[in-house]
Amino acid sequence: MSSFLPESLQKVIDEFSRLPGIGPKSAQRLAMHLLHSPEMRVEGLARAIADSKKGLKFCQECFNIAESDICKICEDHQRNKRQICVVEEILDVIALERTKQLRGVYHVLHGVLSPIDGIGPDQLKMSELISRVEELIKTRINPGEVEIIIATNPSLEGETTAMYITKLLKVLGVKVTRIGRGLPAGGDLDYADEMTLTRALQGRLEYI
Amino acid sequence: MSSFLPESLQKVIDEFSRLPGIGPKSAQRLAMHLLHSPEMRVEGLARAIADSKKGLKFCQECFNIAESDICKICEDHQRNKRQICVVEEILDVIALERTKQLRGVYHVLHGVLSPIDGIGPDQLKMSELISRVEELIKTRINPGEVEIIIATNPSLEGETTAMYITKLLKVLGVKVTRIGRGLPAGGDLDYADEMTLTRALQGRLEYI
Repeated sequence: MSSFLPESLQKVIDEFSRLPGIGPKSAQRLAMHLLHSPEMRVEGLARAIADSKKGLKFCQECFNIAESDICKICEDHQRNKRQICVVEEILDVIALERTKQLRGVYHVLHGVLSPIDGIGPDQLKMSELISRVEELIKTRINPGEVEIIIATNPSLEGETTAMYITKLLKVLGVKVTRIGRGLPAGGDLDYADEMTLTRALQGRLEYI
Repeated sequence: MSSFLPESLQKVIDEFSRLPGIGPKSAQRLAMHLLHSPEMRVEGLARAIADSKKGLKFCQECFNIAESDICKICEDHQRNKRQICVVEEILDVIALERTKQLRGVYHVLHGVLSPIDGIGPDQLKMSELISRVEELIKTRINPGEVEIIIATNPSLEGETTAMYITKLLKVLGVKVTRIGRGLPAGGDLDYADEMTLTRALQGRLEYI
């Protein structure tokens, strides 16, 4: 592109451009930022990136990211193992943890059902979820005391996945719930689309 | 923030968040991208960042970025040394080089006059520009043959800087020009602000 640039600078611009959400212009800006940053900061960033994946694996229980075989959440004895929140991605775990509302554990599917992209149940951690619930029931826990909260996205694929999981789990006799859908906090009723409003009406709660 | 995340992952999210234009959410996305990228790519990015500044300096002639004392553009004997394009930043050199219109050389000011931010002529490569032009004239070049194209941004600071430079250079007898200002390509006349339209009218060119 800009042949006059020193090779090392062009290289880092190219590498930045490959990252998701970073276009050629942002990549250039980032490279210029490095150029004007102290050497120590640049090395800190490089080291953090190089080390980011070192020693990381997926939790054998919930498939969240972990430093050992079991993640910090599954390891925590204060967590309610009978309440499993099913999410699409690790980022969803981060978002939910931030609410501090959930005292249960998670199950990361690592995707959603999407026939167009060739993603079926086998490409997801679906059978692992079923076995996990079956294991729970085997330990003489009343299935009615187990709650599976399905927190996939309220998108077409997310809803399809939620319904698919519900079908598989219902036969085991466990309680299956879906996260509430409706108007987001700060939302505006007359700007909401029909689907959101329909779900807001269906999901209405009685004041007590 | 999310105490359950492995330290190495939290570290890289923090480092990404420090970069300009990257918020906490984008930083998380980038970290997840690394997590799902092959080890080789992650190391490639880390190395490119660590090496980005290695052996780089500013050109002694024009203050563009360079691998040796003189940058690739100033080194090029095919470039017209009597036409100097004055820009604010290195990114502006990249943008102008992409047009392939300029056969002259550059002078990077590394900023603009901005009294509010405490940036006066001494904080910029201003005196270096004057000496450079004086040197040119000393080599028995007719001052009228020297053109200084002022390509600072058409912002308040950019215009002020352009006027300041013009004043200093005019006394040396050289030709001083300002890049054209007006409607951008693909722009819409009735959406343009008054200042842009005023300059578009002032900068009109006759069809020949």
